[in-house]
Amino acid sequence: MTELIDPKLFSDDVMMKKFRFIVELDKLKMVFRRTLLLDKSRTENDAEHSWEMATMALVLHSYAEPGTDLLRVLKMLLIHDLVEIDAGDTYVYDRVGIRDQPERESAAASRIFGLLEDPEGAELHALWREFEDRITPEARFARALDRLQPLFHNYCTAGQVWRQNAIKASQVRQAMQVIREGSATLGLFADRLIDASVEEGYLATSDEG
Amino acid sequence: MTELIDPKLFSDDVMMKKFRFIVELDKLKMVFRRTLLLDKSRTENDAEHSWEMATMALVLHSYAEPGTDLLRVLKMLLIHDLVEIDAGDTYVYDRVGIRDQPERESAAASRIFGLLEDPEGAELHALWREFEDRITPEARFARALDRLQPLFHNYCTAGQVWRQNAIKASQVRQAMQVIREGSATLGLFADRLIDASVEEGYLATSDEG
Ligand SMILES: [Ca+2]
Repeated sequence: MTELIDPKLFSDDVMMKKFRFIVELDKLKMVFRRTLLLDKSRTENDAEHSWEMATMALVLHSYAEPGTDLLRVLKMLLIHDLVEIDAGDTYVYDRVGIRDQPERESAAASRIFGLLEDPEGAELHALWREFEDRITPEARFARALDRLQPLFHNYCTAGQVWRQNAIKASQVRQAMQVIREGSATLGLFADRLIDASVEEGYLATSDEG
Repeated sequence: MTELIDPKLFSDDVMMKKFRFIVELDKLKMVFRRTLLLDKSRTENDAEHSWEMATMALVLHSYAEPGTDLLRVLKMLLIHDLVEIDAGDTYVYDRVGIRDQPERESAAASRIFGLLEDPEGAELHALWREFEDRITPEARFARALDRLQPLFHNYCTAGQVWRQNAIKASQVRQAMQVIREGSATLGLFADRLIDASVEEGYLATSDEG
């Protein structure tokens, strides 16, 4: 894709690299996820997902741990899925795909954030790593939103994707611990969504499976 | 869409309103724009556009006026097109559509940001207004990116959408003044993109039309 841009249009090499990175962004619009749009018309892509999560953070930030830096949360959410341009979307319940997911995504992060000169390249690469490590309050909150969003979409679409993939309530409860660890209030909400999904028959219990 | 969520799942009314707003967000994924993806496979939607612009801001922020607050820029970019859920996307060169665009978009902003309780509702509504008014450095920079992104996509896709809509270089030059007013460096880049587009035959000059 870099041949799209005549190098002489840029003020300097740093600017050219920024726009090579921007050209790369477009590919995230073609990485499709397992999550349905609420109208069930199609699955969403990673660019849409990343936007929805960042915008959710604007209104749910009050449920983060006090002192959580919203700017750092937004940066993480905007760039957290760029690695999927190379590594693809790995379904959270895919036991085979998750085995080599860390290696595939680390290599992708090096390539994609390496398109940029520092300081931006190093900063975004470090923010991606921080999101993955889930140690800081910002990363824990961002990761909580990343789990809550598909859970919420699954609840609102009557569990269609869960049923297609034969997902059990116990698997969802385990995956959703990440939400509780990032926000107590959103963790309680996630528990209620899972309970309601079982009650409504959107999600099978282990006994039934 | 609000019937998707059982009210008893929420901790309180404030939380319920936040999630009604989040349900609304999904509709932006179905508002399509005039801008082509770089691979020309389809036009992009407003959710993808908003994500790309916010992520562009992370790497182009160094070209904003010194002191420009990146957090406020990101917030504006994330929410700037929500009004198009009701008002639709108005093409920047649509002389009829732009006549009542302010009224249509103001009504949409009242409805959509009014889904939220304050402080978030009032904050996001004010940020949307600030973006439209283009007075603060943050709004000028955010608006510059909002003009630069489709210009850049048009250049990279050989002006296909410009040619389909019989857009002239003089119209583009006028619309792109907003870029110069938001960032001197990006304004120069925009000028070079327009000049190159004329040279390459992507964009007709007035004389030819
Ligand atoms: Ca717009």
